[in-house]
Amino acid sequence: MKKLINTPESVLADALRGVEAAHPDLTVDHTNRVVISGAPRDGRVALISGGGSGHEPLHSGFVGAGMLDAACAGEVFTSPTPDQMLAAATQVDGGAGVLFIVKNYTGDVLNFEMAAELAGEQGIDTASVVVADDVAVQDSTFTAGRRGVGTTVFVEKIAGAAAAEGKSLAEVKAVAEKVSESGRSMGIALTSCTLPAVGKPSFELPEDQMEVGVGIHGEPGRKREQLATAREIAAEMVEAITADLDFTGGPVIAMLTGLGGSPLIELYGVYADVADLLAEKGITVARSLVGDYITSLDMAGCSLTLLRADDEMLRLWDAPVNTTALRWGC
Amino acid sequence: MKKLINTPESVLADALRGVEAAHPDLTVDHTNRVVISGAPRDGRVALISGGGSGHEPLHSGFVGAGMLDAACAGEVFTSPTPDQMLAAATQVDGGAGVLFIVKNYTGDVLNFEMAAELAGEQGIDTASVVVADDVAVQDSTFTAGRRGVGTTVFVEKIAGAAAAEGKSLAEVKAVAEKVSESGRSMGIALTSCTLPAVGKPSFELPEDQMEVGVGIHGEPGRKREQLATAREIAAEMVEAITADLDFTGGPVIAMLTGLGGSPLIELYGVYADVADLLAEKGITVARSLVGDYITSLDMAGCSLTLLRADDEMLRLWDAPVNTTALRWGC
Repeated sequence: MKKLINTPESVLADALRGVEAAHPDLTVDHTNRVVISGAPRDGRVALISGGGSGHEPLHSGFVGAGMLDAACAGEVFTSPTPDQMLAAATQVDGGAGVLFIVKNYTGDVLNFEMAAELAGEQGIDTASVVVADDVAVQDSTFTAGRRGVGTTVFVEKIAGAAAAEGKSLAEVKAVAEKVSESGRSMGIALTSCTLPAVGKPSFELPEDQMEVGVGIHGEPGRKREQLATAREIAAEMVEAITADLDFTGGPVIAMLTGLGGSPLIELYGVYADVADLLAEKGITVARSLVGDYITSLDMAGCSLTLLRADDEMLRLWDAPVNTTALRWGC
Repeated sequence: MKKLINTPESVLADALRGVEAAHPDLTVDHTNRVVISGAPRDGRVALISGGGSGHEPLHSGFVGAGMLDAACAGEVFTSPTPDQMLAAATQVDGGAGVLFIVKNYTGDVLNFEMAAELAGEQGIDTASVVVADDVAVQDSTFTAGRRGVGTTVFVEKIAGAAAAEGKSLAEVKAVAEKVSESGRSMGIALTSCTLPAVGKPSFELPEDQMEVGVGIHGEPGRKREQLATAREIAAEMVEAITADLDFTGGPVIAMLTGLGGSPLIELYGVYADVADLLAEKGITVARSLVGDYITSLDMAGCSLTLLRADDEMLRLWDAPVNTTALRWGC
């Protein structure tokens, strides 16, 4: 295993020290492993997400004005605990309540449910949205139902803008649910990732094969296939996603994320083919992101997310955001 | 070789199609392989950089208001030609002249010199700054003198802000030279990169070793060493850089870039130790970047750049910038 680490046990704590050192605008609660925005939030709904680490910049890279108020970091590929989520809620609640944004993995869902109960006992209103946008498979290694992946970024951005406008908890939750229901994702891995604590690849993928529909923890996808061209990979993702939801007739926000080990020059190459294929289908991409946004440690590969937006979602997408991984208008 | 590509020959052309599709604000001259900012530049000095591809987001990711006006893309790890640079100059010159920002590799330097001659024949004033900031080795595989790496990002940003303020070509060149002389870099590779056209790693690096002082094309560094911890790697980089230039007594801008194959969680871990070590030396980091800014395809590893800034450089660093890889104030 060749990694830039001190010890497998210290990876998360070291990274959080680095986040704190690099970004004076962010506050890190090291005891609870929570990254907190320094922005004031009195009277505004606060947004909290979190999950296992190893998917950076998700979620800590999306903490800041116009997006998340706090992100709870679990160990690598391990859910954060209810205590972490409660600590986050008590630190960011401005009296208008807290929305939990949860990716659909069993541990995350159960722990955020428990945190909501604990927060309620302390007089903090909470609501939750669960993102389950990965069309690859129904049920998976760590999930009942579909896995939650790239649409989470869209929920965090768009619901974050709604919260920044002063909408109520019920209103922000409604926006978040609409975004969650309007996004679909599909990923393809060329290699496995390697967990620091394990020291060898999570799964074996022969030199001439790829995993179609892979999960962000290396969960199996739909099938193994012969390693294909960028255009064929783009087509597999586009076909799977557009077969699941109709993206014609309105603006679409597209995100092609790398999974951590694929360089940007390759991601742009895949996106070129994605854009061509969407245009051929009469799908209008209004906004797009290409880069590493939700990753799987050092896995080579990519994942496409499409969001069927409307004018309101587009307006909230364009609203100012000031985080380390997404920043505009600020 | 597991890459998201169509053919090794189409990697650059495909990526440029992707840049165009993803970023409507940018114009791509596909014939000349130049990425151009859509921003107006009448009466302002224009900034052009370029080099071999495979180091993304450098340079195309730094094209936009407040930074580069155009980036010329060579094939992977291959200098762009004088014709490309001339095509860029004719398209972005607003009458106030063009500054070429050149990384110190022999092909880049010669071709930008030739482009300057050709531009002069067409009545376009040019000036050049050559960045040679890599402290690892004197002379290298493709270089006489030191290699040019991370300080290039600082030159592009700070000189870009000076140009945006309407400074003259001589003034912008002077700012660029001051930045270039005030930056130092050092990188460490855990793995080789693999060029699409070659299909196998550029060099062999045993599972228990790392290359200290590696170049961004995989050029040899100072030495091979036993794979070390993040803190030891941070210390090797910090020691090499601070032994070469005194960074105490003023604000420093720090950048820890990944080389393409190392995930963000690891980069933050290394940065935590870099920050500690700099603090121990009494060096004050005023601004910092952690992420992939100048890469080497899929190489695992990282490179540290420190800039000895002054108040004016810091002010220009903080000025608005609107590119795909650096954006604030816009």
